[in-house]
Amino acid sequence: MTIYKVPKGFRDFPPDIMILRKRVMATIEKVFIKYGFDPFETPAIEYWETLKGKYGDEVESKLVYKFQDPWSETWFALRYDLTVPLARFVASSSVALPFKRYHIGRVWRHESPQKGRYREFWQCDADIIGSPYPEADAEIINLIIDVMSAFNITGYTIRVNDRRLLTGIFEEGLGLGSYGRERMLAIFRAIDKLDKIGVNGVRSELEALKLPQDHIDRIMNTILISGNYNDILSEISSRFPNNEKIKVAVQHLEEMFELIKDHKRVVFDLSMVRGLDYYTGPIFETYVEEPKIGSLTGGGRYDDLIKRYGGPDLPATGTSFGIERIIDAGLELGLFKLDKKTYTSVCVVCLDPGLYKFCWEITNRLRDSGIATQVDLMRRKERKQREYCESKNIPYVIFIGHKEKESNRFTVFDRENQRRYENLTLEEVIQLISSSS
Amino acid sequence: MTIYKVPKGFRDFPPDIMILRKRVMATIEKVFIKYGFDPFETPAIEYWETLKGKYGDEVESKLVYKFQDPWSETWFALRYDLTVPLARFVASSSVALPFKRYHIGRVWRHESPQKGRYREFWQCDADIIGSPYPEADAEIINLIIDVMSAFNITGYTIRVNDRRLLTGIFEEGLGLGSYGRERMLAIFRAIDKLDKIGVNGVRSELEALKLPQDHIDRIMNTILISGNYNDILSEISSRFPNNEKIKVAVQHLEEMFELIKDHKRVVFDLSMVRGLDYYTGPIFETYVEEPKIGSLTGGGRYDDLIKRYGGPDLPATGTSFGIERIIDAGLELGLFKLDKKTYTSVCVVCLDPGLYKFCWEITNRLRDSGIATQVDLMRRKERKQREYCESKNIPYVIFIGHKEKESNRFTVFDRENQRRYENLTLEEVIQLISSSS
Repeated sequence: MTIYKVPKGFRDFPPDIMILRKRVMATIEKVFIKYGFDPFETPAIEYWETLKGKYGDEVESKLVYKFQDPWSETWFALRYDLTVPLARFVASSSVALPFKRYHIGRVWRHESPQKGRYREFWQCDADIIGSPYPEADAEIINLIIDVMSAFNITGYTIRVNDRRLLTGIFEEGLGLGSYGRERMLAIFRAIDKLDKIGVNGVRSELEALKLPQDHIDRIMNTILISGNYNDILSEISSRFPNNEKIKVAVQHLEEMFELIKDHKRVVFDLSMVRGLDYYTGPIFETYVEEPKIGSLTGGGRYDDLIKRYGGPDLPATGTSFGIERIIDAGLELGLFKLDKKTYTSVCVVCLDPGLYKFCWEITNRLRDSGIATQVDLMRRKERKQREYCESKNIPYVIFIGHKEKESNRFTVFDRENQRRYENLTLEEVIQLISSSS
Repeated sequence: MTIYKVPKGFRDFPPDIMILRKRVMATIEKVFIKYGFDPFETPAIEYWETLKGKYGDEVESKLVYKFQDPWSETWFALRYDLTVPLARFVASSSVALPFKRYHIGRVWRHESPQKGRYREFWQCDADIIGSPYPEADAEIINLIIDVMSAFNITGYTIRVNDRRLLTGIFEEGLGLGSYGRERMLAIFRAIDKLDKIGVNGVRSELEALKLPQDHIDRIMNTILISGNYNDILSEISSRFPNNEKIKVAVQHLEEMFELIKDHKRVVFDLSMVRGLDYYTGPIFETYVEEPKIGSLTGGGRYDDLIKRYGGPDLPATGTSFGIERIIDAGLELGLFKLDKKTYTSVCVVCLDPGLYKFCWEITNRLRDSGIATQVDLMRRKERKQREYCESKNIPYVIFIGHKEKESNRFTVFDRENQRRYENLTLEEVIQLISSSS
């Protein structure tokens, strides 16, 4: 017999995991809304044409789920992120600017499945369309700070860099201007792997791109400049005083920095370049000190993307929060627990099969009062009903026998505090359970 | 230049639509939770093997999005419903019974796009695994009644039928026993179209299946029996007194009916058979009198499905709510409005560019108090800032100029009531706006 399984790299989410995931998503959503973002969603499927040429060759040939519609022979793709579909929408719609939207949804990537890496995962994205100013980037960074704070995550930094600054430095400052856009993006992708493959690994990747040793040296010397945010910007300004791109970027970054609500969270990191092709200005990633996992957020400015869909020349910036990494980090840091198996507050335990209809009446009354209630559906004996309640860790139990039916008074057992309440009217039962949840 | 569009049959959801959709989904979710259902989710993608043979040939050849993974050449499919993946999971997992789960998520069907019919849409499913008893089916029907009531939908009926009853009547009562399972399912699918194609349409479909005229007459005479729930059951019992399947079904349906909280909502309809192959017992669909659209819910008992995945012999029942139809019905009935364009409560209007930082401080304070706040990100003049606020119909505006900065007292304009509040402290502003939302 065939064994039916969930496909490799995909996951089922049992209730305890879903309850935690929903709590994490609701926390992020609440902060998005506070910042004035509104929900906007696009389909899971896009024309392959829409995705093509936006992420870079490596991603597009290896990681995008493409498929041909068997009926029309059209090529479709499952969405790889939530940003490109947003750009496609904005390009052909008229929206009031700034258009601030959030989207919490699944994306699909043909990754090699491994611990913490899946082929289907959730992204929570917030984007601001229409503002070219550092205010918009600062708002995205403040949003990240408030999301981290909503989770009580304290040991983290937001790494900031700027694509214009990098291009300015590389093309003119380091004399690599003749490389052209494609080669420059390949260099960025190599640098992006620094955390994973180290300095020597990046050197090998740059050698594989056939860069001469002295260019590689210049690149490595620059991206490894360290210091605090303002020091690095001053250092760059003084090293490359006459470059227009660098000047514009430095001014943007300084103004952005001034509006960030918690300066000590933000570091400038010339080696953080992000893998995707579409960034054009400031870029940001969030890292926790512990556990050692990849970035919890990634994002940046992408001023050219909407134009590439035939839309108006609309600047844009945003960030994506990775649910899986936030959950992994939160569980390891002890900030989250997988201890809630159900939303149910109370089990109605029926002591006699003849009282079924009365048990249902009580159940209906509890549900009508908004209390999440279970009643036996399996015609089980009392003990089995109680065991079910225990296996789900449902906090309250109400026992219903002939005495309860006659007196219309009830006994409630509070499992958590091992406390028994007797002789309660139904109204008192409802009040007791409602007030505790 | 290529025009990039959303694929045919797929949709983008702008904020006003998303806000309504989220409200509808949250309302349904709340009722699910009250009934003791917990969240459980499966991936968007399944192995094609998992779906194959579960829905019937027509669905599987025309409507399931199948695709071959270009790397492994494995055949995958986008999920067609939320029930089959649930059965696949339960078959290979150990869960406490009854396992009551809900799942609100997208499904994909290769339909011909037309008004109200899409290739990507949302289902809200609640299922009970483990109980063979009418209690479980009754709980599903009561759940439907409470969801309809949560939306204030009043003009609706839940049509009930039973697959065992139909099989009993057709095979033995009408002497069609030699047709076999496949042909019987084809007959069900033809009857399922009664609402769409009428009595003569169904007759033609049955003729196309090469049924003799007298068989067709007997089928049509039976499925058109009408009357109230109990009358129909009595009529069937007396017409076919010695059939075991019919006896079992009638008893199940009578016990189920006793537990339903609002009898007048439920009608028995022998012509309602549901299109999918996997049903084995009671089946239910919900229809509104107005507008004339298809069923708002569909579901039933599927006792064999989990076994077919190599799992234990677990009975199961459930229903699916169609978000799109509920929204279409609610909009037409005037129960829903698309009038909310944003969750944002207040706009901070900056009267002087020099006060930017102060405006951001006030914005941070409002957001920290949980108030959804917008502040200008576009370096716009006052009028443009106000126009943005109006275009989104944001209820409150705070004006910040030098006077406000010096006095730390603020003017708030309540747009909806056209009322101006002056000389408020920030705490008073927060209280005013918080209390209204």
